[in-house]
Order: sequence, then C-alpha cells, then structure tokens
Amino acid sequence: MSWLDEVKWDEKGLVPVITQESETKQILTLAWMNKESLQLTADTSVATYWSRSRQKLWRKGETSGHEQLVQSIRMDCDADAIILEVIQKGGIACHTGRHHCFYKKLVDGEWQAIEPVLKDPKEIYK
Amino acid sequence: MSWLDEVKWDEKGLVPVITQESETKQILTLAWMNKESLQLTADTSVATYWSRSRQKLWRKGETSGHEQLVQSIRMDCDADAIILEVIQKGGIACHTGRHHCFYKKLVDGEWQAIEPVLKDPKEIYK
Repeated sequence: MSWLDEVKWDEKGLVPVITQESETKQILTLAWMNKESLQLTADTSVATYWSRSRQKLWRKGETSGHEQLVQSIRMDCDADAIILEVIQKGGIACHTGRHHCFYKKLVDGEWQAIEPVLKDPKEIYK
Repeated sequence: MSWLDEVKWDEKGLVPVITQESETKQILTLAWMNKESLQLTADTSVATYWSRSRQKLWRKGETSGHEQLVQSIRMDCDADAIILEVIQKGGIACHTGRHHCFYKKLVDGEWQAIEPVLKDPKEIYK
C-alpha cells in the first residue's frame, strides 16, 4: 500500500494540513489537500494545496511568490491530519499581508487582530 | 453578534481545532469542536472537543487525567480554523501514550513512527 493510501481522506477526498514554520514553530495556516496535491508536495518539496473555494490545485505562492519550502511531512495517529514543516519565503503566509493567518485572539469575548500587516496585499498580489 | 457566531462552522456545525503546547510550541492534536464545545472551552479554560466517532462532547482527559489547560484561543483570517494554546497535563496528548499525535514522519516514501511511547495506554486508560 502506498503511503498516500494510508491517509484517511474524508468524504470529499481531502485531509486538513497544518503548516508550521520550522524556525519559529509558529502555525502559519490550516489548509486542505487532496491526494494529488499531497503527492505533488512530497515530490517537489513546495507546498501545494487544494483550494476548496476555487476547486483547483493551489501552489502556495504562485501569485505572491510566498512559497513554502517543505522540510518534513508528518501524520497523526488517526491518519486524518497532516503537518508540513516549512520555510516561509518572504515571511508572509497570510493573504492579508500578515506573517501567519491566526492573528485573531479571543480577548474578553471578542476576536481582536493582534498581529501587524507586514505588507499591503495590493503590493503582494499585483 | 457573538464571537461564537463569527466562526464559520462547516456543514456539520464543526470547526477544526489545532492544539499547540505553549511551552514547546509542538502541535499536539488536531480535533474538532461544535459551538457548545468551544463555548465550554472558553468558559472553563479546559479543552472540550466534539468527538466525531462517538458523536458527543469530549472533555480531553476525562478518563486519562491528561487535561489541556487553555492559555489562549486564536482564529484564522477565514474564521474556519482555531488554535488552542495549552499546558498539557501529564505531558501526554496522544491515546497511544506519546507526547503528541503527529509521531509519523514521511521518510523515503514510508510513514515511520519516530516518537517514543511514554506510558503504556493500558496504564493510562484503566
């Protein structure tokens, strides 16, 4: 059995993928992969996800240049979640221009944005 | 609008939750929550998930004692993923007796278990 077949793909053929920056251990993104994108990611060592909104393969950084260079791929005990350890090119993982996507923190019953925008998205996606 | 209503619950009323150890920054688990479990987690500062296999609320550690004490709750840009930063009681998050669940690493096209079992699960769940 291929290592790809050991992954428990959900009813849509997807698995959630946590992407963690190797140097800082910060969690950058949670995204989704299908079998083809995980195969491509392993083969190329550049993170390629499945875009659920666009229903197509999505090589992270294809527009922005902010690619994620994969250092390791891990799977959990139940085989239904993956971690990519990566080097984040450009230091920006989030489409809002922030270092990572988890910039809202629950404070006194409200989500507060607590991370700075490092680059204007208009400058990133031009 | 309540902070709970800002979360984009999926078609099953769930959201994926990444749980990260505050001290080591290691990713311990990926689990799921419904609205009630996220409310409980925020109210009690002890992680409570929704068990998809048992279809019921699941206070992590209710049998093992390995509770997760919540230090912060974060949400991503798309509001469809959550991070809990926790202190892991007993130092064991995985039902296999390992520190965390992501103990399989892809090496030369095979998943290899690369983390030690710290405690026999028979001793944990007795």
